[in-house]
Amino acid sequence: MPDTSTTRKRVLSGMRATGKLHLGNYVGALENWVRMQNSGEYDCYYFIADWHALTTDYADTREVKRNSLEVTMDWLAAGLDPAKSTLFVQSHVKQHAELYLMLSMITPLGWLERVPTYKEQMENLTGKDLHTHGFLGYPVLQSADILLYAKDAVTPLLVPVGEDQAAHLEITREIARRFNYLFCYNEDFATGLMTGSVSYDGVFPEPQTILTPSPRVPGTDGRKMSKSYGNAIFLTDSEVEVRTKLKTMVTDPARIRRTDPGDPEKCPVWDLHKIYSSAERRAEVNEGCRTAGIGCIQCKGWVADGVVATLAPMQERRSEYMNNPRLVWDILENGASKARKAAEHTMECVREAMHLDASFPEPPKSE
Amino acid sequence: MPDTSTTRKRVLSGMRATGKLHLGNYVGALENWVRMQNSGEYDCYYFIADWHALTTDYADTREVKRNSLEVTMDWLAAGLDPAKSTLFVQSHVKQHAELYLMLSMITPLGWLERVPTYKEQMENLTGKDLHTHGFLGYPVLQSADILLYAKDAVTPLLVPVGEDQAAHLEITREIARRFNYLFCYNEDFATGLMTGSVSYDGVFPEPQTILTPSPRVPGTDGRKMSKSYGNAIFLTDSEVEVRTKLKTMVTDPARIRRTDPGDPEKCPVWDLHKIYSSAERRAEVNEGCRTAGIGCIQCKGWVADGVVATLAPMQERRSEYMNNPRLVWDILENGASKARKAAEHTMECVREAMHLDASFPEPPKSE
Repeated sequence: MPDTSTTRKRVLSGMRATGKLHLGNYVGALENWVRMQNSGEYDCYYFIADWHALTTDYADTREVKRNSLEVTMDWLAAGLDPAKSTLFVQSHVKQHAELYLMLSMITPLGWLERVPTYKEQMENLTGKDLHTHGFLGYPVLQSADILLYAKDAVTPLLVPVGEDQAAHLEITREIARRFNYLFCYNEDFATGLMTGSVSYDGVFPEPQTILTPSPRVPGTDGRKMSKSYGNAIFLTDSEVEVRTKLKTMVTDPARIRRTDPGDPEKCPVWDLHKIYSSAERRAEVNEGCRTAGIGCIQCKGWVADGVVATLAPMQERRSEYMNNPRLVWDILENGASKARKAAEHTMECVREAMHLDASFPEPPKSE
Repeated sequence: MPDTSTTRKRVLSGMRATGKLHLGNYVGALENWVRMQNSGEYDCYYFIADWHALTTDYADTREVKRNSLEVTMDWLAAGLDPAKSTLFVQSHVKQHAELYLMLSMITPLGWLERVPTYKEQMENLTGKDLHTHGFLGYPVLQSADILLYAKDAVTPLLVPVGEDQAAHLEITREIARRFNYLFCYNEDFATGLMTGSVSYDGVFPEPQTILTPSPRVPGTDGRKMSKSYGNAIFLTDSEVEVRTKLKTMVTDPARIRRTDPGDPEKCPVWDLHKIYSSAERRAEVNEGCRTAGIGCIQCKGWVADGVVATLAPMQERRSEYMNNPRLVWDILENGASKARKAAEHTMECVREAMHLDASFPEPPKSE
């Protein structure tokens, strides 16, 4: 395969090391990652944010590495291909930490305290002690993750985001602007002292979002599918597990008896049909539910058919990797090695702009 | 010279990259560093905290590297010897950034907000925007600086501190305890899963302070000597500069005419005599001042004699290095290379304890 990495648009995205992925992770992100990879238009960097796991779960990290391995297996099962995309673990690329430190120095506390997800998480995750310096700096680390790969992209780096993540990218753009303002637009440029790698555009071209379509994926209890709610169907669930879980899924609460007509718009199972069933099947469901022509059990069986059919080829691919987890780890190591090259080049520019590179400091010209 | 680094007590201390050092820096710290080095009792690590310069001066870092070079020349001039001590620049040892990130995750915001110097600096440095994530994290970075070298010390790492820095070391000890508590005292130890480098003592033995004697060193205006007050006598000042500066130094304000008797206890020049003059000379000064037997000009001339005599051998040593600044930079590079080995070994233990090392994650024994 010819190296087209310099002509394709670069894409960066990450996932936390949460362990096995579920349908919500796939539909909301992973499916889109695979699509971007396979379009041939993009040079994709996908990473596992294991250091980010420390922001909320610092007290127990025993499963982090095994979780990273599970996530990667799900990526490969879903069709991510290490020959096409760069897959790596954040903590294997130390430059993320160095840039976190640099950006930490220039990021006003006020910006961090205003990030909407900060307050939200503080309120939601009440069981955890989130009043740490690292949790407050979550958007700083996320900005480092992104900006490390923004430097050499031919066009602005693209970051696929769901709607709720737009604020995080906004602060990344603000931090990039601030860095460029502080360290790139000064007389060193005018006098030509700064040569080569740092251009007038600044070190960091601002990254841009690509909005990821994120249809609602309800869990078996009708709430958003989430591992922590215990309502998730995993990409690794067997046919029996899928059918058993879906059988217990909540439906339109007004449809109590088999003979009551139902309203799909009030039924979370309908949301799954929108994703997993054909147009013909959806028409049958819509008609059958509203007229009480079909029962909920049958309706759930149909949606299970769709889910099982989607998961089958993934699980087949996954079984090969499960038999050889060391190969999966090697894939991550190779990805890290590639990511380190890009990241180190960015850091060379960052250090030069900040006058913190390790080269001998020449005396000023005027002396 | 035989390698006694494993039997001597390890000492760590740092200085900010402020540029040329003055008498206050020498008397308050550097002189003591040289003394510890030459005693033969200690394995000394001395570093230039250039990343720390970013916490308060992030907006202009153009002089940081040249300042690091000047500081190092003053170190060498004062008698630090790269054959005996490890001299390096913080930013050349990337492990400081990685440990900063790790410790950032486990450090409660409340601890940082309570550090006395934090509030103090916020109030004093009003011209600067200190409301950044990095400035709040100053003690976290300082803790990383210290704890990186605490691991392999045969006895608790010793950190020379002035009285006003005791709080910073206290938070470092708290962070060390917290790290050990979170990541080292768990069932992995009991089951023997964690082998080798991490012991039951935890990753970080708590460092200890050595109180540095810090006599008062007034500047020419009578306030504490400080570069930012413009009242400093630099280690590089020529005899003429030293004498000129001291001639303008404020004295006992009650002694207006030559014939007025003075009180040395109210005169900042007396503080310098205590450092730079012999007991005989001090007796002459005390007697002469109180009886108006000598004038202030003569008294200042005497103290200048002492200062000049102290600086002369330093300046002679310095001139050799000034003719070969690349040698000085090489000394720092060699020091960084040695520091990196110690720091990387610490990070291997840190990563293992946090389960963030890059080794293949073996499946749990129970599976």
